[in-house]
Amino acid sequence: MLYKGGGWLAAAEQGRKLSKEAFERALPGLRTALLDAQTRLRRQARFPVLIVIAGVDGGGKGDTVNILHEWFDPRFLVTHAFGPPSDEEAERPPYWRYWRALPPKGRIGIFFESCYTQPLGGAMKRKDLDRALERIRAHEKLLADDGTLLLKFYFHLSKKAQKKRLKTLAEDPARSWRVTKDDWAHFRNHGKFRRAAERVLAATHTLDAPWIVVEGADEEYRNITVAKAILKALRARLKRPHRPPKAPTLKRLKPAKRLEGLDLSLRMTERVYHRERLRLQGRLHELSRKAQKAGVPAVFLFEGSDAAGKGGAIRRLTAALDARYYRVIPVAAPTEEERAQPYLWRFWRQLPRAGHLTIFDRSWYGRLLVERVEGYAGRAEWQRAYGEIRDFEAHLLAHGTALAKCWLHIDKDEQLRRFRERERTPWKRFKITPEDYRNRAKWGLYAQAAEELFARTGTPQAPWTLVAANDKAYARVKVLKACCAALERALS
Amino acid sequence: MLYKGGGWLAAAEQGRKLSKEAFERALPGLRTALLDAQTRLRRQARFPVLIVIAGVDGGGKGDTVNILHEWFDPRFLVTHAFGPPSDEEAERPPYWRYWRALPPKGRIGIFFESCYTQPLGGAMKRKDLDRALERIRAHEKLLADDGTLLLKFYFHLSKKAQKKRLKTLAEDPARSWRVTKDDWAHFRNHGKFRRAAERVLAATHTLDAPWIVVEGADEEYRNITVAKAILKALRARLKRPHRPPKAPTLKRLKPAKRLEGLDLSLRMTERVYHRERLRLQGRLHELSRKAQKAGVPAVFLFEGSDAAGKGGAIRRLTAALDARYYRVIPVAAPTEEERAQPYLWRFWRQLPRAGHLTIFDRSWYGRLLVERVEGYAGRAEWQRAYGEIRDFEAHLLAHGTALAKCWLHIDKDEQLRRFRERERTPWKRFKITPEDYRNRAKWGLYAQAAEELFARTGTPQAPWTLVAANDKAYARVKVLKACCAALERALS
Repeated sequence: MLYKGGGWLAAAEQGRKLSKEAFERALPGLRTALLDAQTRLRRQARFPVLIVIAGVDGGGKGDTVNILHEWFDPRFLVTHAFGPPSDEEAERPPYWRYWRALPPKGRIGIFFESCYTQPLGGAMKRKDLDRALERIRAHEKLLADDGTLLLKFYFHLSKKAQKKRLKTLAEDPARSWRVTKDDWAHFRNHGKFRRAAERVLAATHTLDAPWIVVEGADEEYRNITVAKAILKALRARLKRPHRPPKAPTLKRLKPAKRLEGLDLSLRMTERVYHRERLRLQGRLHELSRKAQKAGVPAVFLFEGSDAAGKGGAIRRLTAALDARYYRVIPVAAPTEEERAQPYLWRFWRQLPRAGHLTIFDRSWYGRLLVERVEGYAGRAEWQRAYGEIRDFEAHLLAHGTALAKCWLHIDKDEQLRRFRERERTPWKRFKITPEDYRNRAKWGLYAQAAEELFARTGTPQAPWTLVAANDKAYARVKVLKACCAALERALS
Repeated sequence: MLYKGGGWLAAAEQGRKLSKEAFERALPGLRTALLDAQTRLRRQARFPVLIVIAGVDGGGKGDTVNILHEWFDPRFLVTHAFGPPSDEEAERPPYWRYWRALPPKGRIGIFFESCYTQPLGGAMKRKDLDRALERIRAHEKLLADDGTLLLKFYFHLSKKAQKKRLKTLAEDPARSWRVTKDDWAHFRNHGKFRRAAERVLAATHTLDAPWIVVEGADEEYRNITVAKAILKALRARLKRPHRPPKAPTLKRLKPAKRLEGLDLSLRMTERVYHRERLRLQGRLHELSRKAQKAGVPAVFLFEGSDAAGKGGAIRRLTAALDARYYRVIPVAAPTEEERAQPYLWRFWRQLPRAGHLTIFDRSWYGRLLVERVEGYAGRAEWQRAYGEIRDFEAHLLAHGTALAKCWLHIDKDEQLRRFRERERTPWKRFKITPEDYRNRAKWGLYAQAAEELFARTGTPQAPWTLVAANDKAYARVKVLKACCAALERALS
């Protein structure tokens, strides 16, 4: 079924057929096997399965998807058709809707075209197309690396076969509604679509997310072919569990000690702090109004060691903001639903609507900090995260999101002083747990992880703001400035 | 602060004020106490707090909400302003957006007006207003009964004070954007809004969801008054945990034995089944197309004992449907996120968009079946659920949803036969667990619960279809008919 080199689609213009008898003979065994594999997927193996269906009009996409719902147990299978985005979707980065619809572990999801619709349309400029395909590859790699079984089907028809199919449908009173003017227009552009498909398929066919081209003219052949391909892939994965890929080759880093280089003695007098804070809060308020008006979404994230003052800095921001337009997400251990998805899923789902702001108190960088240091993520996993996070932030930026990333840094003595102070204050005591002292013992490991993270995820568009935070006044003013600057960048 | 009888609002037109000095004196202690209460809420008590803010324009709603975000820890507080519904919201019953935004246990949610916007607008017809208020009362009762701490603030200004406030804002360059044409139009209708507010407040002021009328003219007075009221209510609840209300008084039931009355010997020949199934699947397909076109959402739910054939019946439905428009939700134990909400929350969140269908394989009736029989819900809880579920379904029906409720019934011998058969079939074996045999031992209790549920939740608009299911063919045809009938009712 896989046709490489010299054209993907020619091999799917040969009039392949399956007789009714052969179909009926194959069916009972095939259905039993599909149900069995689906059950084992759900009860034992528990990885997500994502099936993408694309292809020419009249190629049988809808029919085959319906048949798969008939042959699999439909309770554990969900199909998403991505038409025009809803307004809630349109206000987020384009991939938000695909993330939102991802099947959790143990389930099968079918995507109707999804991110392929536009590239397969054949109307994109070369540069945009290349970028779109790059995005798709990165996205599918992330899913596959995380354990998703990915299969992509392209249903093809020769021009002659497409004409015949559309005519047959149009002449059948029960199905004529399925042939639209668009379908005929597409038919006239068969050649254009064909060329676009050749390019897209070649560029996005990978070992982890292969394309399977299926000749769509004969219903029996098409359905059996697709079901068998799914069964084969499912069985192979059930037999041999997903082996996380090796760690990517990362560029060597020059030793940088940015945290050590911070001047922690920086201080601000009460008077200057008061003046600066009010001035910057006014500025932030004004910018946030502009962002609301312009429909610019914003994401501010905060990292740093325990007791570095993240919460206090966040409160100085929110004091200047309209409560109807922001929300603060304190990031702790993921919930059950979140654990059944790739780790970035829970951040995608919290992205703000146009004109709104999400403040993350700790963030996706946890993958490179606590998950790395405590061993919750394997070496290959957290090393992959550098690129995955850069891609994620690129989605935000390309959508016009104002992004501020603040790291609040204090030294070990200051942390101890703050722990002790918290222990003395009745209503702050809950903030200190034995875990805080355990984390403190790993100070060096966290610092090393932080340095590497700055070097690998700081970009000109999404720079890290490192904040000397021994003095709270100084830190808060610096954070206010960084957030104003992020809004200014996005608004300009 | 509570003014009953002789007009709610007159008492909030007296020019109450708080001096700057008194405000500054009260503030530190108040803020510490608020944070302390919020922390205890989050770490020990874990109930949801919902604060509704309503009132006249210029009454200070926005300012006070922002102050609350400053005084509380904004990480555990979320404000929702309900403007015009998004298209995803508009395609669901109106309360979907309020359910969607409910704070989970341990958190505080602030709703800007929410379901009160329309009733307070003063433009509803008497009959519609009465119905809207009845809905609000039922909704708030459900939340309060479930343990939510509910507080509602109405910010009032006399006509004179409102004029002064709007003028002050309009003349301040930094805040003039906040005064819109609408605000002045509302000002001219001060009397109309006043009358509407009097009526709405009186009708929805309950012990569990009290209104607190606050004079809005003086900022210091307003903010301190609101914060103190919240603190008082929070502390009272933290001291004396929520006691679930007593079971409601239910009408006595005439002994009905609808399940026993079913003729389980009903059978269908293979030939008739084949013909009828195809005919009804065609009909269902046609009706579902009509529903897609008309934007009618549909909900089909299935209940019945283990091995009664729910899955098989569902597959005969979905075989006739377009996979892009339906999804099947198998209902098992609630997830972590779902457990932090009232039990109906997880069903509200799954409601279909316009033209789409959700099939529930088991449903909210679990509250009255497994939760009742196994004791997961207390007596008062499941007895309340009859009314709550009737209200929930009334929301669906009022929104035009096609609703089918099917109960598949088999006898004990047939169940045992099917268990044995499943145990013999390799890929069905997983379906049988020791729990199935345990449930079997409680056959009588489940039957009794079912009978009561039919009597108390079957309505002319949302009738139960009881299906004799010893013969699978007969049962599937009957289910197809019931689902077609539900779509026909909604489409007519």
